[in-house]
Amino acid sequence: MNNENNDNLSLIEIRNKLRKFASDREWDQFHTPRNLLLALVGEVGELSEIFQWKGEVKDTSEFSDKEKEHLGEELSDVLLYLIRLSDKCNINLSNAVLDKIKKNGDKYPVELSKSSAKKYNDL
Amino acid sequence: MNNENNDNLSLIEIRNKLRKFASDREWDQFHTPRNLLLALVGEVGELSEIFQWKGEVKDTSEFSDKEKEHLGEELSDVLLYLIRLSDKCNINLSNAVLDKIKKNGDKYPVELSKSSAKKYNDL
Amino acid sequence: MNNENNDNLSLIEIRNKLRKFASDREWDQFHTPRNLLLALVGEVGELSEIFQWKGEVKDTSEFSDKEKEHLGEELSDVLLYLIRLSDKCNINLSNAVLDKIKKNGDKYPVELSKSSAKKYNDL
Amino acid sequence: MNNENNDNLSLIEIRNKLRKFASDREWDQFHTPRNLLLALVGEVGELSEIFQWKGEVKDTSEFSDKEKEHLGEELSDVLLYLIRLSDKCNINLSNAVLDKIKKNGDKYPVELSKSSAKKYNDL
Repeated sequence: MNNENNDNLSLIEIRNKLRKFASDREWDQFHTPRNLLLALVGEVGELSEIFQWKGEVKDTSEFSDKEKEHLGEELSDVLLYLIRLSDKCNINLSNAVLDKIKKNGDKYPVELSKSSAKKYNDL
Repeated sequence: MNNENNDNLSLIEIRNKLRKFASDREWDQFHTPRNLLLALVGEVGELSEIFQWKGEVKDTSEFSDKEKEHLGEELSDVLLYLIRLSDKCNINLSNAVLDKIKKNGDKYPVELSKSSAKKYNDL
Repeated sequence: MNNENNDNLSLIEIRNKLRKFASDREWDQFHTPRNLLLALVGEVGELSEIFQWKGEVKDTSEFSDKEKEHLGEELSDVLLYLIRLSDKCNINLSNAVLDKIKKNGDKYPVELSKSSAKKYNDL
Repeated sequence: MNNENNDNLSLIEIRNKLRKFASDREWDQFHTPRNLLLALVGEVGELSEIFQWKGEVKDTSEFSDKEKEHLGEELSDVLLYLIRLSDKCNINLSNAVLDKIKKNGDKYPVELSKSSAKKYNDL
Protein backbone atom coordinates (compact mmCIF):
# COMPACT_ATOMS: atom_id res chain seq x y z
CA MET A 1 0.00 0.00 0.00
CA ASN A 2 1.18 3.50 -0.76
CA ASN A 3 1.69 6.06 1.97
CA GLU A 4 0.37 8.83 -0.17
CA ASN A 5 -3.20 9.76 0.47
CA ASN A 6 -5.00 10.87 -2.62
CA ASP A 7 -8.34 9.58 -3.74
CA ASN A 8 -8.59 11.86 -6.71
CA LEU A 9 -5.48 12.18 -8.84
CA SER A 10 -5.47 14.49 -11.83
CA LEU A 11 -4.15 13.54 -15.25
CA ILE A 12 -1.25 15.96 -14.84
CA GLU A 13 -0.31 14.60 -11.40
CA ILE A 14 -0.09 11.11 -12.90
CA ARG A 15 1.80 12.39 -15.93
CA ASN A 16 4.32 14.08 -13.65
CA LYS A 17 4.84 10.97 -11.54
CA LEU A 18 5.53 9.00 -14.72
CA ARG A 19 7.94 11.61 -16.01
CA LYS A 20 9.92 11.42 -12.79
CA PHE A 21 9.81 7.61 -12.73
CA ALA A 22 11.23 7.42 -16.27
CA SER A 23 13.73 10.19 -15.76
CA ASP A 24 15.11 8.63 -12.55
CA ARG A 25 15.73 5.39 -14.49
CA GLU A 26 16.86 7.00 -17.77
CA TRP A 27 14.00 5.30 -19.55
CA ASP A 28 13.02 8.11 -21.91
CA GLN A 29 15.20 6.46 -24.53
CA PHE A 30 12.78 3.46 -24.54
CA HIS A 31 9.58 5.46 -24.37
CA THR A 32 8.95 6.00 -28.06
CA PRO A 33 5.30 6.16 -29.14
CA ARG A 34 5.19 2.69 -30.74
CA ASN A 35 7.07 1.05 -27.86
CA LEU A 36 4.57 2.53 -25.41
CA LEU A 37 1.63 1.59 -27.61
CA LEU A 38 2.72 -2.05 -27.79
CA ALA A 39 3.26 -2.05 -24.03
CA LEU A 40 -0.29 -0.72 -23.65
CA VAL A 41 -1.60 -3.52 -25.89
CA GLY A 42 0.24 -5.99 -23.65
CA GLU A 43 -1.53 -4.61 -20.58
CA VAL A 44 -4.93 -4.66 -22.29
CA GLY A 45 -4.22 -8.33 -22.91
CA GLU A 46 -3.58 -8.92 -19.21
CA LEU A 47 -6.77 -7.05 -18.36
CA SER A 48 -8.69 -9.26 -20.79
CA GLU A 49 -7.27 -12.42 -19.23
CA ILE A 50 -9.04 -11.54 -15.99
CA PHE A 51 -12.39 -11.66 -17.76
CA GLN A 52 -11.75 -14.30 -20.41
CA TRP A 53 -13.37 -17.43 -18.94
CA LYS A 54 -15.99 -15.76 -16.80
CA GLY A 55 -18.93 -15.60 -19.18
CA GLU A 56 -21.06 -12.55 -18.66
CA VAL A 57 -20.07 -10.54 -15.58
CA LYS A 58 -22.72 -8.24 -14.13
CA ASP A 59 -20.39 -6.59 -11.67
CA THR A 60 -17.38 -7.53 -9.58
CA SER A 61 -19.28 -8.41 -6.40
CA GLU A 62 -18.23 -12.06 -6.74
CA PHE A 63 -14.57 -11.30 -7.37
CA SER A 64 -12.24 -12.39 -4.58
CA ASP A 65 -10.11 -9.73 -2.86
CA LYS A 66 -7.12 -11.06 -4.75
CA GLU A 67 -8.94 -10.76 -8.07
CA LYS A 68 -10.04 -7.22 -7.28
CA GLU A 69 -6.48 -6.22 -6.43
CA HIS A 70 -5.25 -7.81 -9.65
CA LEU A 71 -7.97 -6.00 -11.60
CA GLY A 72 -6.92 -2.66 -10.07
CA GLU A 73 -3.33 -3.35 -11.10
CA GLU A 74 -4.16 -4.12 -14.71
CA LEU A 75 -6.50 -1.13 -15.05
CA SER A 76 -3.69 1.01 -13.64
CA ASP A 77 -1.12 -0.42 -16.03
CA VAL A 78 -3.29 0.48 -19.00
CA LEU A 79 -3.88 3.96 -17.61
CA LEU A 80 -0.19 4.57 -16.92
CA TYR A 81 0.91 3.61 -20.44
CA LEU A 82 -1.95 5.63 -21.93
CA ILE A 83 -0.99 8.78 -20.04
CA ARG A 84 2.69 8.25 -20.82
CA LEU A 85 1.92 7.71 -24.51
CA SER A 86 -0.18 10.89 -24.59
CA ASP A 87 2.66 12.81 -22.96
CA LYS A 88 5.23 11.51 -25.44
CA CYS A 89 2.86 12.44 -28.29
CA ASN A 90 2.45 15.98 -26.92
CA ILE A 91 -1.30 15.53 -26.53
CA ASN A 92 -3.00 17.60 -23.84
CA LEU A 93 -5.20 14.79 -22.64
CA SER A 94 -7.58 16.94 -20.57
CA ASN A 95 -8.38 19.13 -23.54
CA ALA A 96 -8.70 16.12 -25.82
CA VAL A 97 -11.08 14.42 -23.38
CA LEU A 98 -13.31 17.48 -23.06
CA ASP A 99 -13.44 17.84 -26.85
CA LYS A 100 -14.29 14.16 -27.26
CA ILE A 101 -17.09 14.19 -24.69
CA LYS A 102 -18.51 17.24 -26.46
CA LYS A 103 -18.35 15.45 -29.83
CA ASN A 104 -19.93 12.32 -28.37
CA GLY A 105 -22.76 14.45 -27.05
CA ASP A 106 -23.33 15.86 -30.53
CA LYS A 107 -23.22 12.40 -32.13
CA TYR A 108 -25.55 10.91 -29.54
CA PRO A 109 -28.28 13.47 -28.76
CA VAL A 110 -30.14 12.47 -25.60
CA GLU A 111 -33.53 12.10 -27.23
CA LEU A 112 -32.36 9.97 -30.16
CA SER A 113 -30.03 7.69 -28.27
CA LYS A 114 -32.07 7.09 -25.14
CA SER A 115 -31.91 3.43 -24.13
CA SER A 116 -30.40 2.51 -27.52
CA ALA A 117 -27.05 0.86 -28.26
CA LYS A 118 -27.19 1.81 -31.93
CA LYS A 119 -24.19 3.43 -33.54
CA TYR A 120 -24.62 7.15 -34.25
CA ASN A 121 -24.81 6.66 -38.00
CA ASP A 122 -27.76 4.29 -37.50
CA LEU A 123 -29.73 6.60 -35.20
CA MET B 1 -14.02 22.73 -29.35
CA ASN B 2 -15.44 22.60 -25.85
CA ASN B 3 -16.38 25.73 -23.96
CA GLU B 4 -15.17 24.32 -20.71
CA ASN B 5 -11.75 25.45 -19.68
CA ASN B 6 -9.84 22.82 -17.83
CA ASP B 7 -6.32 21.77 -18.62
CA ASN B 8 -6.08 19.35 -15.77
CA LEU B 9 -9.04 17.08 -15.23
CA SER B 10 -9.04 14.65 -12.35
CA LEU B 11 -10.03 10.99 -12.65
CA ILE B 12 -13.15 11.63 -10.59
CA GLU B 13 -14.20 14.61 -12.70
CA ILE B 14 -14.01 12.43 -15.80
CA ARG B 15 -15.79 9.56 -14.05
CA ASN B 16 -18.61 11.91 -13.06
CA LYS B 17 -18.99 13.27 -16.58
CA LEU B 18 -19.27 9.71 -17.89
CA ARG B 19 -21.81 8.78 -15.22
CA LYS B 20 -23.99 11.70 -16.24
CA PHE B 21 -23.55 11.00 -19.95
CA ALA B 22 -24.69 7.38 -19.49
CA SER B 23 -27.46 8.22 -17.08
CA ASP B 24 -28.92 10.90 -19.39
CA ARG B 25 -29.11 8.28 -22.16
CA GLU B 26 -30.14 5.33 -19.98
CA TRP B 27 -27.00 3.50 -21.08
CA ASP B 28 -26.13 1.86 -17.77
CA GLN B 29 -27.95 -1.22 -18.98
CA PHE B 30 -25.28 -1.64 -21.72
CA HIS B 31 -22.28 -0.78 -19.57
CA THR B 32 -21.44 -4.21 -18.23
CA PRO B 33 -17.74 -4.89 -17.59
CA ARG B 34 -17.20 -7.15 -20.62
CA ASN B 35 -19.13 -4.85 -22.96
CA LEU B 36 -16.95 -1.94 -21.85
CA LEU B 37 -13.79 -4.02 -22.10
CA LEU B 38 -14.53 -5.04 -25.69
CA ALA B 39 -15.34 -1.42 -26.52
CA LEU B 40 -11.96 -0.46 -25.04
CA VAL B 41 -10.24 -3.10 -27.21
CA GLY B 42 -12.00 -1.59 -30.22
CA GLU B 43 -10.60 1.84 -29.39
CA VAL B 44 -7.09 0.47 -28.83
CA GLY B 45 -7.44 -0.96 -32.34
CA GLU B 46 -8.28 2.47 -33.73
CA LEU B 47 -5.34 3.98 -31.87
CA SER B 48 -3.06 1.32 -33.37
CA GLU B 49 -4.30 2.07 -36.88
CA ILE B 50 -2.87 5.57 -36.57
CA PHE B 51 0.61 4.12 -36.08
CA GLN B 52 0.41 0.93 -38.14
CA TRP B 53 2.17 1.86 -41.39
CA LYS B 54 4.48 4.53 -40.02
CA GLY B 55 7.54 2.51 -39.16
CA GLU B 56 9.36 3.84 -36.14
CA VAL B 57 7.98 7.16 -34.90
CA LYS B 58 10.30 9.29 -32.77
CA ASP B 59 7.65 11.81 -31.86
CA THR B 60 4.60 13.39 -33.44
CA SER B 61 6.33 16.49 -34.83
CA GLU B 62 5.64 15.30 -38.39
CA PHE B 63 1.97 14.52 -37.77
CA SER B 64 -0.45 16.81 -39.60
CA ASP B 65 -2.92 18.83 -37.52
CA LYS B 66 -5.65 16.44 -38.63
CA GLU B 67 -3.61 13.44 -37.50
CA LYS B 68 -2.89 15.04 -34.14
CA GLU B 69 -6.58 15.75 -33.61
CA HIS B 70 -7.42 12.17 -34.55
CA LEU B 71 -4.74 10.90 -32.18
CA GLY B 72 -6.19 12.98 -29.33
CA GLU B 73 -9.61 11.51 -30.05
CA GLU B 74 -8.47 7.91 -29.97
CA LEU B 75 -6.37 8.39 -26.83
CA SER B 76 -9.47 9.96 -25.23
CA ASP B 77 -11.72 7.11 -26.31
CA VAL B 78 -9.43 4.58 -24.65
CA LEU B 79 -9.26 6.71 -21.50
CA LEU B 80 -13.02 7.17 -21.31
CA TYR B 81 -13.78 3.45 -21.58
CA LEU B 82 -11.03 2.67 -19.11
CA ILE B 83 -12.39 5.06 -16.50
CA ARG B 84 -15.95 3.88 -17.11
CA LEU B 85 -14.86 0.23 -16.81
CA SER B 86 -13.04 0.99 -13.54
CA ASP B 87 -16.15 2.71 -12.22
CA LYS B 88 -18.42 -0.19 -13.14
CA CYS B 89 -15.94 -2.57 -11.46
CA ASN B 90 -15.95 -0.47 -8.28
CA ILE B 91 -12.23 0.16 -8.51
CA ASN B 92 -10.90 3.36 -6.95
CA LEU B 93 -8.55 4.15 -9.79
CA SER B 94 -6.52 6.82 -7.96
CA ASN B 95 -5.72 4.43 -5.13
CA ALA B 96 -4.98 1.63 -7.57
CA VAL B 97 -2.63 3.86 -9.57
CA LEU B 98 -0.70 5.00 -6.49
CA ASP B 99 -0.34 1.40 -5.32
CA LYS B 100 0.86 0.32 -8.76
CA ILE B 101 3.45 3.08 -9.08
CA LYS B 102 4.71 2.10 -5.63
CA LYS B 103 4.96 -1.57 -6.68
CA ASN B 104 6.71 -0.64 -9.92
CA GLY B 105 9.24 1.34 -7.92
CA ASP B 106 9.92 -1.73 -5.78
CA LYS B 107 10.24 -4.00 -8.82
CA TYR B 108 12.51 -1.58 -10.64
CA PRO B 109 14.93 -0.06 -8.12
CA VAL B 110 16.64 2.99 -9.64
CA GLU B 111 20.16 1.61 -9.42
CA LEU B 112 19.38 -1.79 -10.95
CA SER B 113 17.14 -0.61 -13.74
CA LYS B 114 18.99 2.50 -14.84
CA SER B 115 19.09 2.72 -18.62
CA SER B 116 17.92 -0.89 -18.93
CA ALA B 117 14.78 -2.23 -20.62
CA LYS B 118 15.10 -5.62 -18.91
CA LYS B 119 12.07 -7.12 -17.21
CA TYR B 120 12.21 -7.03 -13.42
CA ASN B 121 12.72 -10.76 -13.07
CA ASP B 122 15.83 -10.51 -15.26
CA LEU B 123 17.42 -7.63 -13.34
CA MET C 1 -17.81 -13.86 -53.96
CA ASN C 2 -14.64 -15.47 -55.14
CA ASN C 3 -14.54 -17.79 -58.13
CA GLU C 4 -12.02 -20.03 -56.49
CA ASN C 5 -13.44 -23.13 -54.93
CA ASN C 6 -11.59 -24.21 -51.88
CA ASP C 7 -13.19 -25.05 -48.58
CA ASN C 8 -9.98 -26.03 -46.92
CA LEU C 9 -7.03 -23.75 -47.46
CA SER C 10 -3.68 -24.60 -45.95
CA LEU C 11 -1.49 -22.14 -44.09
CA ILE C 12 1.06 -22.21 -46.90
CA GLU C 13 -1.55 -21.57 -49.59
CA ILE C 14 -2.67 -18.48 -47.70
CA ARG C 15 0.91 -17.40 -47.09
CA ASN C 16 1.65 -17.68 -50.79
CA LYS C 17 -1.42 -15.66 -51.77
CA LEU C 18 -0.31 -12.92 -49.40
CA ARG C 19 3.23 -12.97 -50.73
CA LYS C 20 1.96 -12.47 -54.27
CA PHE C 21 -0.51 -9.80 -53.19
CA ALA C 22 2.25 -7.80 -51.49
CA SER C 23 4.80 -8.38 -54.24
CA ASP C 24 2.38 -7.26 -56.99
CA ARG C 25 1.89 -3.99 -55.09
CA GLU C 26 5.49 -3.55 -53.90
CA TRP C 27 4.27 -3.60 -50.32
CA ASP C 28 7.10 -5.62 -48.78
CA GLN C 29 8.71 -2.33 -47.84
CA PHE C 30 5.77 -1.65 -45.47
CA HIS C 31 5.48 -5.16 -44.08
CA THR C 32 7.88 -4.93 -41.17
CA PRO C 33 7.03 -7.01 -38.12
CA ARG C 34 5.83 -4.13 -35.94
CA ASN C 35 3.81 -2.55 -38.75
CA LEU C 36 2.05 -5.86 -39.33
CA LEU C 37 1.54 -6.40 -35.61
CA LEU C 38 -0.12 -3.01 -35.17
CA ALA C 39 -2.29 -3.71 -38.22
CA LEU C 40 -3.29 -7.00 -36.60
CA VAL C 41 -4.20 -5.16 -33.38
CA GLY C 42 -6.34 -2.84 -35.48
CA GLU C 43 -8.24 -5.78 -36.94
CA VAL C 44 -8.70 -7.39 -33.51
CA GLY C 45 -10.27 -4.08 -32.52
CA GLU C 46 -12.72 -4.28 -35.42
CA LEU C 47 -13.55 -7.88 -34.50
CA SER C 48 -14.22 -6.79 -30.92
CA GLU C 49 -16.56 -4.02 -32.08
CA ILE C 50 -18.87 -6.65 -33.53
CA PHE C 51 -19.32 -8.17 -30.09
CA GLN C 52 -19.00 -5.12 -27.87
CA TRP C 53 -22.62 -4.24 -27.03
CA LYS C 54 -24.12 -7.69 -27.35
CA GLY C 55 -23.85 -8.97 -23.80
CA GLU C 56 -23.22 -12.69 -23.65
CA VAL C 57 -23.47 -14.39 -27.06
CA LYS C 58 -24.15 -18.13 -27.03
CA ASP C 59 -23.65 -18.54 -30.75
CA THR C 60 -24.22 -16.55 -33.91
CA SER C 61 -27.66 -17.96 -34.75
CA GLU C 62 -29.23 -14.56 -34.16
CA PHE C 63 -26.72 -12.65 -36.26
CA SER C 64 -28.15 -11.16 -39.46
CA ASP C 65 -26.61 -12.26 -42.79
CA LYS C 66 -24.88 -8.88 -42.98
CA GLU C 67 -23.40 -9.34 -39.51
CA LYS C 68 -22.19 -12.84 -40.35
CA GLU C 69 -20.51 -11.57 -43.50
CA HIS C 70 -18.89 -8.77 -41.52
CA LEU C 71 -17.73 -11.25 -38.90
CA GLY C 72 -16.16 -13.45 -41.59
CA GLU C 73 -14.31 -10.43 -42.95
CA GLU C 74 -12.87 -9.40 -39.62
CA LEU C 75 -11.83 -12.94 -38.68
CA SER C 76 -10.13 -13.15 -42.08
CA ASP C 77 -8.35 -9.83 -41.62
CA VAL C 78 -6.86 -11.02 -38.34
CA LEU C 79 -5.84 -14.32 -39.93
CA LEU C 80 -4.23 -12.66 -42.93
CA TYR C 81 -2.09 -10.31 -40.86
CA LEU C 82 -1.17 -13.14 -38.52
CA ILE C 83 0.03 -15.37 -41.35
CA ARG C 84 1.85 -12.47 -43.00
CA LEU C 85 3.52 -11.55 -39.71
CA SER C 86 4.61 -15.15 -39.17
CA ASP C 87 6.04 -15.24 -42.68
CA LYS C 88 7.97 -12.00 -42.20
CA CYS C 89 9.31 -13.37 -38.89
CA ASN C 90 10.46 -16.60 -40.59
CA ILE C 91 8.25 -18.71 -38.36
CA ASN C 92 7.05 -22.03 -39.75
CA LEU C 93 3.54 -21.68 -38.44
CA SER C 94 2.49 -25.32 -38.99
CA ASN C 95 5.40 -26.59 -36.94
CA ALA C 96 4.84 -23.95 -34.29
CA VAL C 97 1.16 -24.87 -34.05
CA LEU C 98 1.86 -28.59 -33.67
CA ASP C 99 4.44 -27.88 -30.98
CA LYS C 100 2.03 -25.61 -29.14
CA ILE C 101 -0.86 -28.09 -29.20
CA LYS C 102 1.53 -30.71 -27.85
CA LYS C 103 2.64 -28.37 -25.05
CA ASN C 104 -0.94 -27.46 -24.23
CA GLY C 105 -1.76 -31.16 -23.95
CA ASP C 106 1.10 -31.57 -21.47
CA LYS C 107 0.01 -28.54 -19.44
CA TYR C 108 -3.62 -29.61 -19.40
CA PRO C 109 -3.75 -33.40 -18.92
CA VAL C 110 -7.23 -34.70 -19.73
CA GLU C 111 -7.95 -36.08 -16.27
CA LEU C 112 -6.87 -32.99 -14.34
CA SER C 113 -8.45 -30.41 -16.58
CA LYS C 114 -11.76 -32.09 -17.36
CA SER C 115 -14.60 -29.60 -17.19
CA SER C 116 -12.35 -27.07 -15.45
CA ALA C 117 -11.40 -23.56 -16.62
CA LYS C 118 -8.53 -23.31 -14.15
CA LYS C 119 -5.14 -22.16 -15.36
CA TYR C 120 -2.56 -24.94 -15.58
CA ASN C 121 -0.55 -23.68 -12.64
CA ASP C 122 -3.65 -23.93 -10.45
CA LEU C 123 -4.56 -27.48 -11.49
CA MET D 1 8.80 -31.11 -30.13
CA ASN D 2 5.86 -32.89 -31.67
CA ASN D 3 6.15 -36.29 -33.32
CA GLU D 4 3.76 -35.38 -36.04
CA ASN D 5 5.37 -34.39 -39.27
CA ASN D 6 3.41 -31.78 -41.12
CA ASP D 7 4.84 -28.60 -42.52
CA ASN D 8 1.61 -27.46 -44.06
CA LEU D 9 -1.49 -27.79 -41.93
CA SER D 10 -4.84 -26.81 -43.34
CA LEU D 11 -7.36 -24.66 -41.50
CA ILE D 12 -9.70 -27.64 -41.14
CA GLU D 13 -6.96 -29.91 -39.78
CA ILE D 14 -6.26 -27.33 -37.07
CA ARG D 15 -9.97 -26.82 -36.42
CA ASN D 16 -10.40 -30.57 -35.96
CA LYS D 17 -7.47 -30.84 -33.56
CA LEU D 18 -8.98 -28.05 -31.46
CA ARG D 19 -12.41 -29.69 -31.50
CA LYS D 20 -10.92 -32.90 -30.17
CA PHE D 21 -8.79 -31.08 -27.59
CA ALA D 22 -11.84 -29.28 -26.21
CA SER D 23 -14.12 -32.28 -26.40
CA ASP D 24 -11.62 -34.52 -24.55
CA ARG D 25 -11.56 -31.96 -21.72
CA GLU D 26 -15.28 -31.03 -21.82
CA TRP D 27 -14.30 -27.45 -22.53
CA ASP D 28 -17.05 -26.62 -25.03
CA GLN D 29 -19.01 -25.15 -22.14
CA PHE D 30 -16.31 -22.44 -21.76
CA HIS D 31 -15.81 -21.80 -25.45
CA THR D 32 -18.44 -19.14 -26.03
CA PRO D 33 -17.61 -16.51 -28.65
CA ARG D 34 -16.85 -13.69 -26.22
CA ASN D 35 -14.78 -15.92 -23.93
CA LEU D 36 -12.68 -17.00 -26.90
CA LEU D 37 -12.41 -13.45 -28.18
CA LEU D 38 -11.09 -12.17 -24.85
CA ALA D 39 -8.65 -15.10 -24.72
CA LEU D 40 -7.47 -14.09 -28.20
CA VAL D 41 -6.97 -10.49 -27.01
CA GLY D 42 -4.90 -11.87 -24.16
CA GLU D 43 -2.65 -13.73 -26.58
CA VAL D 44 -2.29 -10.69 -28.85
CA GLY D 45 -1.10 -8.90 -25.72
CA GLU D 46 1.55 -11.55 -25.12
CA LEU D 47 2.63 -11.32 -28.75
CA SER D 48 2.95 -7.55 -28.40
CA GLU D 49 5.09 -7.89 -25.30
CA ILE D 50 7.74 -9.65 -27.39
CA PHE D 51 8.08 -6.55 -29.57
CA GLN D 52 7.32 -3.79 -27.09
CA TRP D 53 10.77 -2.47 -26.13
CA LYS D 54 12.59 -3.35 -29.33
CA GLY D 55 12.17 -0.18 -31.34
CA GLU D 56 11.88 -0.86 -35.04
CA VAL D 57 12.55 -4.50 -35.96
CA LYS D 58 13.56 -5.19 -39.56
CA ASP D 59 13.34 -8.94 -39.21
CA THR D 60 13.97 -11.57 -36.55
CA SER D 61 17.57 -12.35 -37.51
CA GLU D 62 18.79 -10.93 -34.19
CA PHE D 63 16.28 -12.83 -32.07
CA SER D 64 17.78 -15.50 -29.84
CA ASP D 65 16.60 -19.10 -30.30
CA LYS D 66 14.59 -18.75 -27.12
CA GLU D 67 12.91 -15.61 -28.40
CA LYS D 68 12.09 -17.25 -31.72
CA GLU D 69 10.52 -20.20 -29.95
CA HIS D 70 8.53 -17.86 -27.74
CA LEU D 71 7.42 -15.91 -30.81
CA GLY D 72 6.25 -19.12 -32.50
CA GLU D 73 4.24 -20.00 -29.40
CA GLU D 74 2.47 -16.67 -29.20
CA LEU D 75 1.70 -16.58 -32.93
CA SER D 76 0.27 -20.09 -32.52
CA ASP D 77 -1.84 -19.12 -29.53
CA VAL D 78 -3.44 -16.30 -31.49
CA LEU D 79 -4.05 -18.62 -34.44
CA LEU D 80 -5.57 -21.35 -32.30
CA TYR D 81 -8.06 -19.04 -30.60
CA LEU D 82 -8.90 -17.42 -33.93
CA ILE D 83 -9.69 -20.75 -35.59
CA ARG D 84 -11.63 -21.93 -32.56
CA LEU D 85 -13.61 -18.68 -32.47
CA SER D 86 -14.42 -19.00 -36.18
CA ASP D 87 -15.57 -22.56 -35.61
CA LYS D 88 -17.81 -21.60 -32.70
CA CYS D 89 -19.26 -18.78 -34.84
CA ASN D 90 -19.99 -21.19 -37.71
CA ILE D 91 -17.77 -19.25 -40.08
CA ASN D 92 -16.17 -21.20 -42.93
CA LEU D 93 -12.82 -19.53 -42.62
CA SER D 94 -11.40 -20.72 -45.96
CA ASN D 95 -14.33 -19.24 -47.85
CA ALA D 96 -14.20 -16.06 -45.79
CA VAL D 97 -10.47 -15.68 -46.48
CA LEU D 98 -10.86 -16.15 -50.23
CA ASP D 99 -13.69 -13.61 -50.31
CA LYS D 100 -11.63 -11.14 -48.31
CA ILE D 101 -8.55 -11.45 -50.50
CA LYS D 102 -10.79 -10.88 -53.52
CA LYS D 103 -12.31 -7.77 -51.90
CA ASN D 104 -8.88 -6.47 -50.95
CA GLY D 105 -7.76 -6.88 -54.55
CA ASP D 106 -10.74 -4.80 -55.69
CA LYS D 107 -10.09 -2.11 -53.09
CA TYR D 108 -6.39 -1.95 -53.88
CA PRO D 109 -5.96 -2.25 -57.66
CA VAL D 110 -2.32 -2.99 -58.49
CA GLU D 111 -1.74 0.15 -60.53
CA LEU D 112 -3.22 2.57 -57.99
CA SER D 113 -1.72 1.07 -54.88
CA LYS D 114 1.76 0.25 -56.13
CA SER D 115 4.36 1.21 -53.54
CA SER D 116 1.77 3.19 -51.59
CA ALA D 117 0.60 2.70 -48.00
CA LYS D 118 -2.47 4.90 -48.50
CA LYS D 119 -5.86 3.63 -47.37
CA TYR D 120 -8.15 2.60 -50.23
CA ASN D 121 -10.48 5.55 -49.76
CA ASP D 122 -7.52 7.92 -50.25
CA LEU D 123 -6.23 6.27 -53.42
